Formats: sequence, C-alpha cells, structure tokens
Amino acid sequence: MPSQNPFGLRLADIQDAKREILRYLEPSPLIRNAWLSELLGCELYLKLENMQPIGSFKIRGAIYKISKLTAEERKRGVIAASAGNHAQGVAWAARRLGVRALIVMPKGAPLVKIQNTQALGAEIVLAGENYDEAFSHAQMVAQTSKMVMIPAFADQYVIAGQGTVALELLDQLPDLEVICASIGGGGLMSGIALAIRELHPQTMLIGCQASGATAMLQSIRRGEALTLDSVHTFADGIAVRKVNPNMLELLSHRLDLTLEADDEDIAAAILSLMEKAKVIAEGAGALPLAVLEKIRDRIQGKKVVVVVSGGNIDVNLLSRIIDRGLIRAQRRLRINVLLHDKPGSLARLTELIANQGANVLQAIHDRSEPSTRIDQTDVALTLETRGPEHSQSLIEALRQHVLPLDVDR
Amino acid sequence: MPSQNPFGLRLADIQDAKREILRYLEPSPLIRNAWLSELLGCELYLKLENMQPIGSFKIRGAIYKISKLTAEERKRGVIAASAGNHAQGVAWAARRLGVRALIVMPKGAPLVKIQNTQALGAEIVLAGENYDEAFSHAQMVAQTSKMVMIPAFADQYVIAGQGTVALELLDQLPDLEVICASIGGGGLMSGIALAIRELHPQTMLIGCQASGATAMLQSIRRGEALTLDSVHTFADGIAVRKVNPNMLELLSHRLDLTLEADDEDIAAAILSLMEKAKVIAEGAGALPLAVLEKIRDRIQGKKVVVVVSGGNIDVNLLSRIIDRGLIRAQRRLRINVLLHDKPGSLARLTELIANQGANVLQAIHDRSEPSTRIDQTDVALTLETRGPEHSQSLIEALRQHVLPLDVDR
Repeated sequence: MPSQNPFGLRLADIQDAKREILRYLEPSPLIRNAWLSELLGCELYLKLENMQPIGSFKIRGAIYKISKLTAEERKRGVIAASAGNHAQGVAWAARRLGVRALIVMPKGAPLVKIQNTQALGAEIVLAGENYDEAFSHAQMVAQTSKMVMIPAFADQYVIAGQGTVALELLDQLPDLEVICASIGGGGLMSGIALAIRELHPQTMLIGCQASGATAMLQSIRRGEALTLDSVHTFADGIAVRKVNPNMLELLSHRLDLTLEADDEDIAAAILSLMEKAKVIAEGAGALPLAVLEKIRDRIQGKKVVVVVSGGNIDVNLLSRIIDRGLIRAQRRLRINVLLHDKPGSLARLTELIANQGANVLQAIHDRSEPSTRIDQTDVALTLETRGPEHSQSLIEALRQHVLPLDVDR
Repeated sequence: MPSQNPFGLRLADIQDAKREILRYLEPSPLIRNAWLSELLGCELYLKLENMQPIGSFKIRGAIYKISKLTAEERKRGVIAASAGNHAQGVAWAARRLGVRALIVMPKGAPLVKIQNTQALGAEIVLAGENYDEAFSHAQMVAQTSKMVMIPAFADQYVIAGQGTVALELLDQLPDLEVICASIGGGGLMSGIALAIRELHPQTMLIGCQASGATAMLQSIRRGEALTLDSVHTFADGIAVRKVNPNMLELLSHRLDLTLEADDEDIAAAILSLMEKAKVIAEGAGALPLAVLEKIRDRIQGKKVVVVVSGGNIDVNLLSRIIDRGLIRAQRRLRINVLLHDKPGSLARLTELIANQGANVLQAIHDRSEPSTRIDQTDVALTLETRGPEHSQSLIEALRQHVLPLDVDR
C-alpha cells in the first residue's frame, strides 16, 4: 500500500465528496459496449463523463472544492485560470452554489469557450499570451481581491472530487478489473488511484498521455517532476507542460501501466467512439481507448473501464477527424485521373464511377494543369466508397478504362 | 380512455416485456441536458436508445417477440425483412436467445449494414429491388421454410417491447410531463402511448415525422390509412410509405400533437445533439428535438423527454451534416474573391485572413475561369470562423482590401 500522500487526502474525503456531489449530479452512465468489447477481446465499459452538464469530469472537483469553502470565503467569490473544461466546471459549480466566479483566460482564447463560460454566469478576464501568463495574472488578482483560487488539479478537495468517478464505478461494476484514464495535470487519475488502491487494490490502473505531451509519463519513469519545452497534441485538455511534484508523488506508485498514443491514433479512437458507441469524445476522452488497442493481450477477457473524461471538441475539428479517418479506413478515396482531353471523357469517367456504386464528393477538373500533356486533362476526385475492398475494385475498374491514375493515401 | 386496440395488447403485456427485457438489457440512460433546456425554456431530458447494443430501440421488440415463441417455433428460426435497425435488432436478439435468424435485405442494401448484421450472427439473403419486394420474398420464405416472421412493428409483442421505453421513463422521471418521439411504422410511439395513457394519462404525447414521409400524420388527420407514392428524407429509419390500419387505430386517439420537421431542421438537430449533448443521433432520433423548437411556447417550464430512438447514421453523412450545419451557422464561410492577377496578390489575401483570425480550409485559385477579366483571377475560399459576427467582420475586412467578392450562403 503506497503511503505517499502530499495533500493529506484520505478515502473518507472522496466518500464525503461523493455525498456532496450527489446533491447536484446524477452518477454518470456506465455503458457496456458490445462492438468495442468484441474488437478488443474484453468486456469494455465506457464511463461517460462527457454526459456531465459541462461535458467533462471537471465539474466534480469544482463542486466539492467550492462546497468546502467557508461562508466568508464564498462571499469573496472564486477565481480560476483556464480556457477549457476547468473554467466551465468552476463557472457551473459557482452558479449552483451561489458564488461569484471570475475566470482568467489567455488573450487568444477561442470565442466559443469564452461564450460558453459566460453563459454559465462567470465573469471573464482576458490576460496574458498563454496559459502560464493567465495563471500568474489570476494569482495576482486573487491576492489583491481576496477571491479564492480554485486550482485545476493540485488541491485536496479538487482531487477528492475527481476521485468520485472511482466510487461510482465500484457501485456500477463491483467486479471491474481494469480502469484506463487520461492524465493531464493528474487530478482525475490520482483521485481514482487513491480510492481504488484502498477499496479494490487488485484493479489494474492504466494512466495515459498523448505522445506530444508526456510530461507526467516521463516524470514517473525518471522519478522527478519535469517541465517540457513545448507540447504538441490536439487533445488540449491534457496538453500540460509542467509536472507538479505533489501530483507526481501521488501517481508514482499507484499505476500499473503508463502508456501513450499519438494524435492519429487518438483521432481514430474518436471516430470509433462515434461509430460504435454513438458518443462524442474530446481527444483526452478518447485517448484511453486508443492505448488499449496497443495492449489487447494484457486485457483479454477482463472487465475494462475506459473513462471518457470529456466531450468538448470543436465540430470543425470533428469534421476533419471524420474526413481523415474515412481516408485512413479507405472509405474515402482521393485519386487523380488523367483523361484524354476530348468531349465525353469526363462523362464516361463519372458514369464508370456511378456503375461501381461509389459517390462523387468532389471533382476538380483542371485543363490548365501544366504538368499534363497538351492532349490530356487532369481530374482530381474525392469519392465515397464502402471500404478497402470497394476502393480496390474501383481503382481496378478505373485502371482498365482510363489512363494511369494516382491514388492519394 | 381510448378503447381501440386491434392487437389485444394490454398494459400487462408491456410490464411483462419489461421483466423479460431486463434479463438482457440495462435500462437506457435518461440524461437531463442543461444547454438544450435553456435553449427551449423547459427541462429537457434525452432518453438515449442510441446507447443500446445495436444503437436503436428496435432491440426491445425483437427480444420480447422472440422470447414469446414456443420451443418448437424457436427451433424453426426467425426471419425478418429490413436493411436497417430492425434487422440488427432481430439478429442480436436471436443470437442471445439461441435462435437461428435469416434477414432479407433488398439488393441495393449498403455493404456496411450487411456486414453489421452478419457480425451479429444472422444469415443474409439479398432479394428484391426495394423494401416491399424484399418483404414479399421474406413472407414467401417464411411460408415454405416455416421460419417465424418477426414484423417490424405491427405485432402485439413487438409493440409491447417498444412500449417498455415508457415504463423505464416513469421509473426514471415519475413526474414527466411531455414525451416526444418519432413515428415510422408506429411501433415505438404506439407502445409508449398505450403504457402512458394507462399509467400517466395527463402526459402530453407528441408524435413526429419527417416532412418528406408523413404517411401516418396524414392518415391520423384524414382518419384513414394512406399509402404515399414516394418518400424523401435522409431519416431512413422512418421513411415509411404505407400505413398499417391497425397501427393507425392504435395511434389515432392517443396523441396530443402530431408535428413534422424537414431534413434541414433534422440535420440542425443532429448537430445540436453532437455539440450540446455529446451524442450521435440518426435522423429519426434527432427529429423530436427538431420539432420541439417549433412549439417552444407549449412546453415552457415543463419536464420534456425526447426519445433519441437510434444513432445509426453513416459517418459520411454525418460529416456532410456538420459541414452544412457550420455553413448555416456562419461558422464556415464560402467566398469567391477576385484578385488582380499579379505576384503577391494571393499572399496578401491569405495574410489578411490570418490577421482576422480565420482558418483557411480550402483555397482554389483558378486563373483560367473564363468569366473573369484577363487581368483578374478568381479564388474560391472555404474559411473556418467563430460565428456570424466573425464572418461579418471578415467579409468587411476583405471588402476593404480586395476586389468585390461573392459570399455563398
């Protein structure tokens, strides 16, 4: 049993947090997914934190932290630095508990995040060029205004709140064997790990990070809290540069496995969750599914919980993820066809495609392309197919009837 | 209390179906959604039938129907005609209950639907050019093979199974006031209506159809079972041409309101559910949300349940829905810009766009467009913006710095 516990956090705190949070939130659904279970050879369950009112687990820690403030502290209001889920968690919880909330976001924060947080009743201040500068500004405001700072993760009550995910899981699936969750600052995973190591110590705990932001994973391996120069991942909820030493200590000896997945794999997992589970996950929420595909043999036949930590992803990005995923799965085909530049060539090409049962999504017919011969013309096609076999038979058919073509994979 | 009940179906059947179905399925989640509640001025709950193992409520009727077969009937196996959710429901239920299943699909059925149904252990026969012909073929096979036909809706046990949605709702939200659900053949809505009119008769029941397929709505208004010449909607789960007179009789006097929404509105509702509720709904599943926007004043402050009947929608279609939705919400902007055809023009244009904080998704620069003057060139741009205001300020900025432009709305 690990003893490291820098915040003095005990299981009783997490149990208290559960009672408090239940006053405001229903337990989030835990859904067994048949398709993904078959795919991974285990019994796969999804803990849908993306179904929370703000679309993320962050609401838990925010509720519990604010509920533990004294009446006098509540009167002073709360402050937080974040342009993401923490901002919305604090705003939601503050409104429900009748406390004023001020959120500091960096100047470049997306308008939609500003609007969503304002809609939850918080005041917004834009300050600093990046998160670190916004955070410094928030600390300064907290000192002068005496508003209470709500940390994003490094706090006894915030961690206890996030840990309630584990207590709900033990209610919903008492014989669970594996829990896999993302690590950004580490609040979610350390809360889960504290509860699980006391109540269900034999559970396999897997913590994961995006390949472009593995500060905590590297810190755990090296045994010291690292700061990365930069992070690169579209999973913005877990793009954390700097490891807090207390969070490292909490996580160090409580995880069985630490794994990473790159943005391509995370995007594929987002698409899987859409198609197979009918849910929208943000990068951090889909990451655990992406890493499980790499350790199929270690989880065979087991009852595995993936914590889908949040669902706040811009639909523009989602549409790009779908497009790329379809190309990767060969359900969308991009090809360049060279045609003899004479009347009817394009008509014959499109008829051929229609006969093969494929849909034309986009056709760019460019007769001024300089690299083609003067009697040829280039057509760039984007086609919708039924999958790899259909794409292949379509390519064969085109090869037989038109001039050589390039396939863009 | 209406007495019309052509199938001799009683509340006790639905209660029995609930007990039977609970052996195989957890109750589907009912989730309050804060954003949609605020948007519609009511307390909005989503009944997530898209979270069922096959992604649709159809699994309920199939389980109950097969469970009511005699041992001798089960030995003969079951047969159904469908290329959609009914096929998967029957396949899933038959496998779980150890019964052989044969599914007849029309010849043009999408490969992905064939594969998904095969993956559930059913045998597939392709026959007929459309659903009606496939259905006739299935009836013929049923007669010669003595396999038991599982109707898609017009059956006592199938309707009782679908009606269990209502019993779960009354457990989950005893003081519900409004239920809104889609009507295709009418199995789901009539099952719900039978249960609700007995147990909670004051509930407002709203049945809805897609504007391109309003056979049942027209039949209810005219008092006779109609057959449409054709149906046009992407909500394929409810594109039903022919009204069954028994289903009409079941529904006729049990609904408070019948409403329709067109494909544009259904697509917008699908996008809303993705962004605000983090779930994927198919057309039929999003339709109830689309119609509620038209009767906001009738549901003010009420506890309203939207039955998200299914989530089986092709991601190619989903990506098109997102794209169109973004254009409609002015978060994606398509403009044609005329530039002086001299070095640096395009570079200045893209710099201007970057300074305005918009993303270029696609740029087609065509100097051979014949309608432009010889010293001009046309650039077709697809841009990602933050919304209507951002789009507007971007257009203003472009108007000041470049030649006149066309905005494609």
